Amino acid sequence: MQFAHITIFVKNKEVEMINFSKMHGAGNDFIVVRAEDINGIDYCVLAKKVCDRHFGIGADGLMVVEESEKYDIKMSYYNSDGSVGEMCGNGIRCFSKFVYEKNIVKKENILVDTLAGVKKIELTIDGNGKVEKILVDMGKPEIKAKAVPVITDKETFINEVIKIEDLSVKVSSILMGVPHTVIFVDEIKEKEVYEIGAKIEKHNIYPQNTNVNFVEIVNRGFIKVDTWERGAGKTLACGTGVCSSVYIAYLLNHVDKRVNVNVPGGKMTIYINNDDEVFMEGTANFICDGKFFCKENY
Amino acid sequence: MQFAHITIFVKNKEVEMINFSKMHGAGNDFIVVRAEDINGIDYCVLAKKVCDRHFGIGADGLMVVEESEKYDIKMSYYNSDGSVGEMCGNGIRCFSKFVYEKNIVKKENILVDTLAGVKKIELTIDGNGKVEKILVDMGKPEIKAKAVPVITDKETFINEVIKIEDLSVKVSSILMGVPHTVIFVDEIKEKEVYEIGAKIEKHNIYPQNTNVNFVEIVNRGFIKVDTWERGAGKTLACGTGVCSSVYIAYLLNHVDKRVNVNVPGGKMTIYINNDDEVFMEGTANFICDGKFFCKENY
Repeated sequence: MQFAHITIFVKNKEVEMINFSKMHGAGNDFIVVRAEDINGIDYCVLAKKVCDRHFGIGADGLMVVEESEKYDIKMSYYNSDGSVGEMCGNGIRCFSKFVYEKNIVKKENILVDTLAGVKKIELTIDGNGKVEKILVDMGKPEIKAKAVPVITDKETFINEVIKIEDLSVKVSSILMGVPHTVIFVDEIKEKEVYEIGAKIEKHNIYPQNTNVNFVEIVNRGFIKVDTWERGAGKTLACGTGVCSSVYIAYLLNHVDKRVNVNVPGGKMTIYINNDDEVFMEGTANFICDGKFFCKENY
Repeated sequence: MQFAHITIFVKNKEVEMINFSKMHGAGNDFIVVRAEDINGIDYCVLAKKVCDRHFGIGADGLMVVEESEKYDIKMSYYNSDGSVGEMCGNGIRCFSKFVYEKNIVKKENILVDTLAGVKKIELTIDGNGKVEKILVDMGKPEIKAKAVPVITDKETFINEVIKIEDLSVKVSSILMGVPHTVIFVDEIKEKEVYEIGAKIEKHNIYPQNTNVNFVEIVNRGFIKVDTWERGAGKTLACGTGVCSSVYIAYLLNHVDKRVNVNVPGGKMTIYINNDDEVFMEGTANFICDGKFFCKENY
């Protein structure tokens, strides 16, 4: 039994249960807890435990709502393997809905403190006082090849051909917090996402590996994106992948400045402003609220 | 979004939330709800929704606690794809702990009505009034080859050699509610479970396919079992697989009548009585209790 040996202690007192919400943003799912409920617990251990899909509640990551010294609120993000995540585009939408609807931060414009810096959030509230949509300022991507990083003599790596065994593929790579590579296709084919995605992820021109986005342009205001995530494989939605896909499509004049995007787990809208900053708008959903039992063999 | 079109209605009134427990037995995880809380809901639709690992709570199956006309209580079991399951060995342990600790059936000997007939349960209660162990009467396996079914001229199919491409494998097949095939190995190797398991599952001598158990005999009172489940692949634990493995090991005089079994998700103890009936004893655990939000975009 994977976690039979892990017991959660807080200041030498065993914790019996923890309040949580399970939420999702476009199928990317998270456990959200308040720091005050888990004060003193090792968050990495807790993340592994609650995210386990069979022995725990099950999720892609854990987010802890913490007080921030400088901003409205602080988001601490942990992957399901217990590692720290700097930021998560789908996660921060869920986090923002949580802090608003649970009356922790009752503002429509929220500044969220993250390990990737402060993130500006704008909420759309519906007639019932619920958060309908969440707009996240994702910042300006970095297009210099050195920043991605890509091993090349070129200044940028947009619309370049790379070889994968016998196949030539036209790719564009940028840094949107993490390295992202975009391939435009006539039609997204799942088989290609698995086969080509895995090979490009670890192609030797990407020293830190890369996320890979397969992009189908439907029209200048609508695209479809399937992302092969670095270290995770094909996922239901990748926020930074969607932003990168729209940004590169915009650079290559395939789309306008406002683009609706379908991903396997849902949909988002991406905006690019006159300063080349990227904004992502989407929904977030509560799946369940509950009490997680920390004691083994409860 | 997979379930965007499914909304749960009860007698023309939309249900907003449903009380649930998530539990596991040796890593096999379940959502348990009471029929009175979901009266009128299509259980198959609900199972797909709550069992979805990203858009729902996430589990291998849904169990509904219902009143029984003849016995103490009725267990209705649904797989995560919405299909009806007749019985589930790990599930019924969780179900029994649930009905006892939630004060629905406050008895240590419980008769549970299932689609596979009535099942006799015996609980061991600890000093705090919690269910420590659950003993399930799994009944007598059927060893006739026709019952399994196996296509053969032989009466039974115990210790027979079958061919998989160039490989000869010695197998034994019985019916323990569902068809089970057992292979004894010196050491369980995950790679073999995947490769050989998948091939034996669909071998043409098994017209209804078969579950495949890889069994390592440690001594006459302790074995290890890894199961390749028909239609599901390698799982953390399979109750009927463990029972079949011990029963065949007993027939071949590899073990005694009381055997501890380790599976990837935990452990169980199997007893065989003088009438060749098989009893499975193991634990069950509450993971969390909560409220599931049925409305889309909650």
